[in-house]
Parts: sequence; structure tokens; C-alpha cells
Amino acid sequence: MAGKKERSAAALPEGFPPARPVSASRTELVEFVLPQDANALGTALGGRVMHFVDMAGAIAALRHCRAPVVTASIDHVDFRSPIQVGELMILKSSVNRTFHTSLEVGVKVFSENPLTGERRHTTSAYLTFVALDEARRPKVVPAITCQTAADRRRYRQALTRRKARLAHRNR
Amino acid sequence: MAGKKERSAAALPEGFPPARPVSASRTELVEFVLPQDANALGTALGGRVMHFVDMAGAIAALRHCRAPVVTASIDHVDFRSPIQVGELMILKSSVNRTFHTSLEVGVKVFSENPLTGERRHTTSAYLTFVALDEARRPKVVPAITCQTAADRRRYRQALTRRKARLAHRNR
Amino acid sequence: MAGKKERSAAALPEGFPPARPVSASRTELVEFVLPQDANALGTALGGRVMHFVDMAGAIAALRHCRAPVVTASIDHVDFRSPIQVGELMILKSSVNRTFHTSLEVGVKVFSENPLTGERRHTTSAYLTFVALDEARRPKVVPAITCQTAADRRRYRQALTRRKARLAHRNR
Amino acid sequence: MAGKKERSAAALPEGFPPARPVSASRTELVEFVLPQDANALGTALGGRVMHFVDMAGAIAALRHCRAPVVTASIDHVDFRSPIQVGELMILKSSVNRTFHTSLEVGVKVFSENPLTGERRHTTSAYLTFVALDEARRPKVVPAITCQTAADRRRYRQALTRRKARLAHRNR
Amino acid sequence: MAGKKERSAAALPEGFPPARPVSASRTELVEFVLPQDANALGTALGGRVMHFVDMAGAIAALRHCRAPVVTASIDHVDFRSPIQVGELMILKSSVNRTFHTSLEVGVKVFSENPLTGERRHTTSAYLTFVALDEARRPKVVPAITCQTAADRRRYRQALTRRKARLAHRNR
Amino acid sequence: MAGKKERSAAALPEGFPPARPVSASRTELVEFVLPQDANALGTALGGRVMHFVDMAGAIAALRHCRAPVVTASIDHVDFRSPIQVGELMILKSSVNRTFHTSLEVGVKVFSENPLTGERRHTTSAYLTFVALDEARRPKVVPAITCQTAADRRRYRQALTRRKARLAHRNR
Repeated sequence: MAGKKERSAAALPEGFPPARPVSASRTELVEFVLPQDANALGTALGGRVMHFVDMAGAIAALRHCRAPVVTASIDHVDFRSPIQVGELMILKSSVNRTFHTSLEVGVKVFSENPLTGERRHTTSAYLTFVALDEARRPKVVPAITCQTAADRRRYRQALTRRKARLAHRNR
Repeated sequence: MAGKKERSAAALPEGFPPARPVSASRTELVEFVLPQDANALGTALGGRVMHFVDMAGAIAALRHCRAPVVTASIDHVDFRSPIQVGELMILKSSVNRTFHTSLEVGVKVFSENPLTGERRHTTSAYLTFVALDEARRPKVVPAITCQTAADRRRYRQALTRRKARLAHRNR
Repeated sequence: MAGKKERSAAALPEGFPPARPVSASRTELVEFVLPQDANALGTALGGRVMHFVDMAGAIAALRHCRAPVVTASIDHVDFRSPIQVGELMILKSSVNRTFHTSLEVGVKVFSENPLTGERRHTTSAYLTFVALDEARRPKVVPAITCQTAADRRRYRQALTRRKARLAHRNR
Repeated sequence: MAGKKERSAAALPEGFPPARPVSASRTELVEFVLPQDANALGTALGGRVMHFVDMAGAIAALRHCRAPVVTASIDHVDFRSPIQVGELMILKSSVNRTFHTSLEVGVKVFSENPLTGERRHTTSAYLTFVALDEARRPKVVPAITCQTAADRRRYRQALTRRKARLAHRNR
Repeated sequence: MAGKKERSAAALPEGFPPARPVSASRTELVEFVLPQDANALGTALGGRVMHFVDMAGAIAALRHCRAPVVTASIDHVDFRSPIQVGELMILKSSVNRTFHTSLEVGVKVFSENPLTGERRHTTSAYLTFVALDEARRPKVVPAITCQTAADRRRYRQALTRRKARLAHRNR
Repeated sequence: MAGKKERSAAALPEGFPPARPVSASRTELVEFVLPQDANALGTALGGRVMHFVDMAGAIAALRHCRAPVVTASIDHVDFRSPIQVGELMILKSSVNRTFHTSLEVGVKVFSENPLTGERRHTTSAYLTFVALDEARRPKVVPAITCQTAADRRRYRQALTRRKARLAHRNR
């Protein structure tokens, strides 16, 4: 099922980092949207949302890899509805699949109106990160272990997205 | 058990907001400590930690009250160990007890070294918030419902702390 | 050549905003990367780069539409090479094609080492923005006029990307 | 009068740093409250006030110790009245008493309405700082010399607060 | 002694704001220079120093006028020596002279090495501010009363600088 | 025409950096004014404008010198008209003349109303920068080559301003 650049936990060669479950690096961020995050209309800036998406993704990647990571790419992102000053921004991230020295992390963004408790799904994003060693060269990342049906579905879909990314890069 | 300024969920008069369980407003924040959060030694500034403590507390209070809140007081805070740039700061907050127009929120701060996964409890804080109505006057807050033994222990201890606060204010 | 939701400058109905050339809204931003834009490794944060990409795109969209705009989507973004503290980030943006109430803007990011003058193309991004009227509802945007072969190539390719976006949204 | 961990200026052993008067490190900060310091209601964020309290305390501690300092604790803080955007925040800090490698600093916060000149005392805080040597280990701090009756009163009260802090820590 | 656009406190027509002494609006700011204020060399950015110069000047002007003020001009500024991260920046400002709807404020900047207590005079600046009424039009400002020889010297020199400014503007 | 501390490109001694044309370091910055850049009236802070003036000047100086630069002085600056939140700030900078280890850069600031396209010239500033070598000592800067009549006019006027600066410093 895994491509040739991925490692199966079963066949783990000596010296390779042990596989980790998806749940071990799952991350949730909550941010209170302040005036300094917004434009003159009181709406959170798209780039500010992307900053938190990048942070949420990087923390999950960092927790999985236990090594410094840098953002390699961000897939297509839709901003379905604006987030206002005074609302909460909730970001949920988890590692979908690891490749040789990189990994895909999914980030879901919700806005929460704290006066009503209403939550809206505003954005979904897939980011890839590369782990770095002390000399800042790409470094082999631990494999991921799926535990739930949702974990396995995301694991499968991540390969499809990776192929699209490689096709896009080679165009 | 509750003081005369507190409302029991059972005896809730008409028009009063319905009681909410502790779990409904429990909040967890994760922050990646960046150079802009630190002093020249690369250690997170005490005031920056307090900013996140205030945010974590305010979000739990806001979620419980469903009304704007302002910070009324912060109890004694110990900074047990420094948090470094590159580490994660995890803040867990929950409502301990509500009073008439105010409520106590507890915030626990942990540092997490993302390269080892090691977590240290660095700070605990108790904050009180006041809920505001449209005219920015104090507003009655919903009562809290305890569900676990820990919820009930924190509920009892919150009254002791409140008495100490009132004594301190009247000194 | 234009889809049914786009307006040709020739057939412009009364009351419609007059078409504008690509060159009228072309924008170039230069940013000096400071420690506050970077992680502990001294590399510009991916989310910070995205903030400037969003700003560069929004300014071109704003100049074309002469109306407030909000970010609707950001296409796949590759971070080809890291940008370091002390380097310059140059962002070039221009409107590729307008649709009914939205438009596509292309942003190219270069890093410039100011000590050598060496420039590297680090990122390309396509963003869509929606123009808003006074009531913050989507508003018809002026058509774009292509003047160069490159303008026309980007105009054609923008339609292909739009179809991919709509297909992605309907999945 | 001083506890066994404190040094009397008279009995100063060789190599110990000379005592310094309270007046030598007294500090006053004035901050203009900007939109970026406030929530959506235009009120200064509690955590932002704490940042300036920490800065005011740290500068007095730094000036007294002439060594890097880190915040060890902040005593109970009341926010008596909100500070608005456009108002001034005045923070006065002075060293109350030194212990072996730590010291207590008092910080008083006032808001000043610049259009009327009216000043309100909004917050008082007591912070303890620890001085660090080159290896970032706690370092002996210079003793403090009281010159006024107020200096001496604060010196006496600081010991009472220290006992409460130690009791609190040992609970 | 005063030009025709200035008002003498003695001849104050009815409805005019009463004169205020220099000492009533004298201001001192202390800032701890953090990594976020500096370039990659660890030196405070010139523009960041100017931000604090503008703040120090604006607070003195605001305190004197008791009305919103905007910066109208900044005279020639020399940066005599760099200020490093970890140092203190001390800014002293006072009103030198008032004109009809504007006033000149002098700001002196010192750096203080907190480990040695050594202070260096790094910059001096003269700024002019204009006071605004509710409709944001220029508004008559209260006259200034000199109390010391230094106050009077600065008052005289401010007129010379004003003439140079007017000559510069009319060039 | 050049003073004794300046080098003519023709007589360039060996080891001296080659002269560069004005056009090679000409820089344009565009900034979108956000609430975080403004005071409570929604007007860009004077000190924030100065930050961008300093950045625009420093980038032109850096590109010309290909060495780290520090701001040495800023000549008299007029703020002719306020810039509002939601407007663009356009900053154009170019090297006017080089001296031995320093150079003068001119910066012109325009505000642009993005809804009308109207541009206003709000500020002009002349800054001097000093180039630094690895040991942070002043370093000889490359000479400048004028190509247009405007380049030559600015080159001549820069000497007049330099003489005024030296006279000012020696007062």
C-alpha cells in the first residue's frame, strides 16, 4: 500500500525511528481573534488565518517527528466564511501520512461565536513539512500508525494528494 | 454549600440563564514559543506567559457565560521553570465556580519540549472574570454543574480562595 | 473566449464598471525579513510568507476593483527554498482574470540576498478574491484588459485553474 | 530585622556586591494604550497590562541587581478599573526588599485620561525576580538600603508577603 | 517676546484655555529593548527608536493640550550610537513652546546598560504636533509657562527652529 | 565636483568597490495600513510611518552597499497629510550620493486611496546610513553613477544637505 519511499512499521530497519500513532501528535489550537489580527472591516486577515494554519500544522509535524520541521507546501485552501474580531478560531491538526523525509498534515479551521456557541467549518488545508537534522538537511521521519477508520481513510487520500503534488511540481 | 450570592441549578428562578457543566467550557491552548515572545536570553517573557494565561482563562469564561468578560483579578502565580524559544506552551483552563456576576477560572501551564515530548508543569493560576451586558455593566452568569470528583474539589477550593480574595480586598 | 459569467469590455452594459488593464493594478512589495518574522532557526515562518502573499494579492485586487476585497481561496503553494532573516522578500502580484464578482491574482515571491544581489524564485501562488459592496455583499468587478502576450497566457491559464477550483469545491 | 538569608550592609563580607538605595532603581514607565493592546471592546487586555507590569518590575530588578533577572512569581493582582484605548498607563516600580538570590519589587499601575488629566489607581502587584550569573544559575543580589519611612514600611511588609509565598509553595 | 500667533497668559481672552507650566506635561518613558525591536545584528531599528520618540513627544503634547494630537513634523535627528537588545531606552520629553494650534516638543533619548548603569545620550529630536477638535480640525492650544532658565532657553530656541521650519516649507 | 572624501568612479583605486548606478538600488515599498499601525482615530502613527521610511531607506542603502547598514541620521520630515487605516502607503527610495563610508538616501511617501486611486505626496525624507564591515566598523561604500538629469540634481543637492548636517553637528 505504501510507496517505495515509505517505510512499513513491520519491516523497520535498525536505527530507524519507531512508528507513532496518529493520536500521539494530534493538536488543537484555540485563538481569540483580536483587532490586531483583522483588517479595517473587522474580519480576520487571510494571511493571519494562514499563519495559525501553518502553526497548527507545524506543531503536529514537530510532535510526530521530534525534529525541527519546515513548511514545504500548502495545498489549495478555501476560505468558506469570514471570521470576525471577537470570535474564536479553532484549528485541529493531525498527521495524515509520512513519506521518506516529509509528511502530510491536515488542518481544519472552525470559527466559534462565543456568544452563541455556534461553530462553522471555515477552512481545510493540507500541508507538507520536511524534517531537518542538526545540519539542516532533510531527515528520515518516523512512520505513522493508523488506529481508526478515519485515520486509514486520510492515509489513503494523502497518497492521491501527493501524486497530484508531484505531477504539479513536474509540470 | 453555595454562598447566598450563588444560584443553585435546582432553584433556578425564571429568566435566569441555565446552568452549564464544567466540560462545556473547558479549553486547551497550544502556543509555539517564537523569538518575538522572548527576552535576549531566549526565555519566554513572564508578561507574555501571563498574556496567554489571560487568553486561556478568558476563553473558558466567555464560553461559559456567552457574554463579553473582563479580567477582575489574578491570584498568586509561580513561574516554576522557564520556557524556551522553540518549546510549546500548553494552557488548560476550566471554570471552577461561578458567583453572582463573576466566576473563577483555573489555568494550568505546561511547557513541552517537542524534540523529546517531555512536559513540565510550569505555572498554575486562578483568575476571576466579570461578565458584561450590552451597557457594559456586570451581568448574572450561568451556574456551573460539577460532574467529576475533581470538578467538585475545585468547586469547594474556589470558595476558600474567594474568601481570601475578599479579605485581601478589604484589608 | 470569456465564459458566460465574464463581461467583454466591448459589450459593456450601462452602469458596469469600465475595464482596466493588467498594468494598472500590478503591484510589487519588498519586505526586509526581521527576527520577528522568523522561527528559532532564523528562517521566515511559512505563515508569515503567506501573510505577505495575501497582502500582495489583496493590494492588486483592491487596486483593480476599487472596492474592499476578501480572500476566497489560495491555490497550492510550494515553498521551494527558505528565506533567511536579513534577506529581502520581493512579492510581485497582478490580476490574471476577472469573473463575475471575483478575480484571480497571481503572486510570485523571490528572496534577495542583499549582500550579493542574488535573487531566487521561492514561491508562486494564485489567490481568488471577492469584491464587496457597502452592505458587504459580493459586487460585480471591472473586467481586465490584456495588453501583452504574457497577460493573455495568464488570462487563458486562469480559466483552467478556475475549472479545477470549481471541480474541487463540488467534490 | 533581616532574616538569616539576607545580608546587612554593615556586615558585608568581602566580595559581596555593595548595598544600593531604593531610589537608585526606582522606575516609571508610561505607555500610550493603542488599538493593538486592546480587545474588541477597546479595553486594554489584562494580559497586556501584565506584560507592562512584568517589564516595569524587571527593569527595577535589573537596575538594582545589574544582572539578568527572570520573573519567579507574581502575587495576587486586582484589576480595579478598565483602561481604555487612548488613555495612558503609568507604571511605578521599586525594589521593596532583597533576599539571598531574589528580590521583591512592587509595581503600581495608574490609568491617566489625557483629556482631563484624571489619574486612577487601577492595579498593584508584587513580583519576585531571581538574578542570574553567566551560567544562568541564581546569583547573590546586592542588599537594599531604605532611606524613607515608606521604604522601611514596604521593607517590613515584604517579609510578611515572603512568608505567605513560602507557605503557599509548601502547601 | 511671543510672536503674533502666540498668546500671552496675561492677556488671555475669555474662552481661551489657561496656560500650563512646562513641568505639568514633562514625560519620561523607559523601554526595555527586546529582540522584536531589533535587526539581525541585535541593534534597535532606527524606525523603532523613532516610534518611541514619536510616542514620548505625543504624550507630552497630549498632556499639555488635553486634546488629540497628530505629528506635523520631526526635525533633523542624529543617531549618535546604536542601542543593543537587552539595553534600556530612556526618553525624556517636554513642551518647548506653543504656537497657535501647534506646539514644539523636545525629546532626548538615552541608552542605559543595565549591567553597568552607564547611560549614553544617543539622540535628540524636536517634533511639532497639531491639536485637533472633535471635527478633527486644528484647535487652539494652551500657552506654556516657563519656570526655569532651561525652560526659557528652550522657549527662545524653539522660535528659531520654527522660523527655519517655515523657511524650509516655503522653499 | 565631489568633495575630498568622495571617490570619482574614473579614478577608482584598486581594491575599491566598483561604482553602481542609482537605478540598481532604487526601491519601492507598498504597505497596506492596518488597525495595528494606527492610533485610536484610525490614523497611521507618525512613528509607524517613520519605521517604513527607515526600512525603505535601509533597503536602498543595503542594495547599493551590499553590506549591513545602520541609520546615522534622518533630516527634517514633514507629515503633510494623515494616512488612514485601509489606505496604501507607497514609499520610493533611491541613493542620492555616497560619501566615504556613508550615503544619503531620499525617501518619498505617498498615500493611495485604493477606492479612488487618488495618490497624495505625504512626506519626503533624507536619511544617511553608514555601511559596516564584519567587525561592525564603518566600511568604504561603492560610488554612485548618475544617469538622468534628476539623478544629477539630487546628487548636487545632497552635498548642500550634507554641509548643513555637518554644520548642525558641530554647533
